Amino acid sequence: MYLTGLECPRCKEKHAADRLQNLCHCGSPLLVRYDIGALARDIDRDDVLRGRDDMWRFSSFLPVPEDKIVSLGEGMTPLYSLDGFAGEIGMDCITIKDEGYNPTGTFKSRGASCGISMAAHLGAETVAMPTAGNAGGAWSAYAARAGLDCVIAMPEDAPEITMKECALYGAETYLVRGLISDAGRIIGTACERYGWFDVSTLKEPYRIEGKKTMGLELAMQLDWDVPDAVVYPAGGGVGLIGIWKALEELELAGWIGPERPRMIAVQSEGCAPLVRAFEDGRTDSDFWEGAETIAGGIRVPKALGDFLVLGALYDSGGRAVEVSDDEIMDVLLTLARTDGSFICPEAAAAVAGVKRMREEGDLTRDDEVMVINTGSGLKYADLLEADLPVLDKEDEINVTPEGE
Amino acid sequence: MYLTGLECPRCKEKHAADRLQNLCHCGSPLLVRYDIGALARDIDRDDVLRGRDDMWRFSSFLPVPEDKIVSLGEGMTPLYSLDGFAGEIGMDCITIKDEGYNPTGTFKSRGASCGISMAAHLGAETVAMPTAGNAGGAWSAYAARAGLDCVIAMPEDAPEITMKECALYGAETYLVRGLISDAGRIIGTACERYGWFDVSTLKEPYRIEGKKTMGLELAMQLDWDVPDAVVYPAGGGVGLIGIWKALEELELAGWIGPERPRMIAVQSEGCAPLVRAFEDGRTDSDFWEGAETIAGGIRVPKALGDFLVLGALYDSGGRAVEVSDDEIMDVLLTLARTDGSFICPEAAAAVAGVKRMREEGDLTRDDEVMVINTGSGLKYADLLEADLPVLDKEDEINVTPEGE
Repeated sequence: MYLTGLECPRCKEKHAADRLQNLCHCGSPLLVRYDIGALARDIDRDDVLRGRDDMWRFSSFLPVPEDKIVSLGEGMTPLYSLDGFAGEIGMDCITIKDEGYNPTGTFKSRGASCGISMAAHLGAETVAMPTAGNAGGAWSAYAARAGLDCVIAMPEDAPEITMKECALYGAETYLVRGLISDAGRIIGTACERYGWFDVSTLKEPYRIEGKKTMGLELAMQLDWDVPDAVVYPAGGGVGLIGIWKALEELELAGWIGPERPRMIAVQSEGCAPLVRAFEDGRTDSDFWEGAETIAGGIRVPKALGDFLVLGALYDSGGRAVEVSDDEIMDVLLTLARTDGSFICPEAAAAVAGVKRMREEGDLTRDDEVMVINTGSGLKYADLLEADLPVLDKEDEINVTPEGE
Repeated sequence: MYLTGLECPRCKEKHAADRLQNLCHCGSPLLVRYDIGALARDIDRDDVLRGRDDMWRFSSFLPVPEDKIVSLGEGMTPLYSLDGFAGEIGMDCITIKDEGYNPTGTFKSRGASCGISMAAHLGAETVAMPTAGNAGGAWSAYAARAGLDCVIAMPEDAPEITMKECALYGAETYLVRGLISDAGRIIGTACERYGWFDVSTLKEPYRIEGKKTMGLELAMQLDWDVPDAVVYPAGGGVGLIGIWKALEELELAGWIGPERPRMIAVQSEGCAPLVRAFEDGRTDSDFWEGAETIAGGIRVPKALGDFLVLGALYDSGGRAVEVSDDEIMDVLLTLARTDGSFICPEAAAAVAGVKRMREEGDLTRDDEVMVINTGSGLKYADLLEADLPVLDKEDEINVTPEGE
């Protein structure tokens, strides 16, 4: 355990990590700090090559005592290439890190595993959160595993499968006629009234740490190197913040050098507050009125950690990109046929962002690009249709020769 | 590459592995053979501890040349315990190997990765198969990735999500008013007529090899040991055959000792041909008329490899167990709340089988049992309901104190 405490990235105030903690007094999310020097003295980077088959092989970079880990085998997701699609857009190397191969089918399980472990460890009895859907499924699952009560509020147009998940895992689940921001207000009020622990995105410090493991893993998987660009579909942006933090800590430990990927945040044209802020050179974003996109996971009108996301974009020479819902669906359907990969619409937005950047000349043929597929397409089967021919038992398949 | 050829487990005839091959002349499925002695001389078992993050870390036990692997990062699935449920049924150690964390959400991706790699390598242009659903999704995905045409036939009551997958990946997909056996006949006829390569369960030799990696991995994950029992939901039984073959090869290589787990095959009362055969002490099974169960993946009236499955049950001191659909649904719903795990109904049957055996005294408290969760519950969301309260934006959550 190398955990030393919590630190505010805005006002630099320090907080103890031995009790339940939400935001800093200044309203900023808190970041977890470690004694990376001691870690580097004790552990060789190649020690982790033969560790657990999940993200907890990096437990030295995480805040949870070994016997308090609440795990369903999350993380250590594989990389694979999109050669077919890359060829079509004139690139040599697009790699997917596929977070669909995770408990509850999304990368949310990483944050939930770490967040629930700490919430239970530090004495929470009930956790509560708003969600666009997938985080609710993940946190409900881990809460059930940890024996915590869980209260979830989500927009009534969230994917039905995520509502079923929350109910299945026993969470007290409410639908809201509104956006995730409306659900967030309802949860915030209830937490104050009933003393529940508010585990909204970035309102507790440990979700980032779970998401951070994506960055630790990708560096290890590239033999302690980084790609030229990491492309990430940004809603709350926690994964991007986490990956950036991971690379910083890996460099502090001497496990990687000072090179950084360009960090690219992709949003939908129907909800692009980070893109607008980036274009204006600002360090925080405005609330996006009338947010609307088929990629529900990035329909976040205002991210609490916007300044952290934008900071990483500026510091890395990255950028924010927006794409249309039509581009998102087109990429989602195309990738299945060119590469056998069924990614979620949020990740399809990210891949569409790569295509945009390539068209604009902002990515070259030989740039090595890694895209985070934040969830399995299987959770979005409602977007697909299947109008298929039906045969009787006695029928035969009759293929019409081409051209007839 | 330690591949030496193909061998018939029934008549012992040998076949070459350098061309497309279906069944033996005698009608039996073929098994792949390797020069395990040479493998053992070249490779130390601990070499694989730091290999690829997918099943291809075991490529020395597999038939595919390195540059012919068609992969989406399948395998290397984690283990986790079901402590909550185990406690409820008076056991200390039930472990899940969770195959839901795989491309297309099921263990079918292992067989498809190996089978499609070999089909493409050996010159197939079109592959065709009947499926209960999940295999169709997997083989369609890998066929798309390999650039092969794919023809699928499945019962019209297969899970709709698997129909959508096949269509998404570009497979020519037919629904059949009947069972998987009816779909199989239609595919067989079409393969003869059009020269397509028939990749039905066990009709080509390489699907087993992909599934075999579950056995290689579980031994490695247990530090080169085996559990007391491996419990497997048996439809075609390929996974069970594969795990058994893996343990045999690992012992030949000297990587594990002679100990074997009891191999347990679980079926539904509505389709239990292997259970009936086992109870009668027979080495093959009869066609099960009127097959019916909510666990569609084990609704297989007659498995082509029944004699191989039954052989493994007898040789290991294992058994076949049947459970009801009510028990299956009860376990599926219970596990989500006790352990945060959402497994598929087939695996829920397997866990229900463990419960049955524990009640019958055929498992003891301290038996270490490993259950293969063959797929993610997320593909079976249709089995669940979510009738949830809806709030307006301005509403608040009102909790009624208990007892009022």
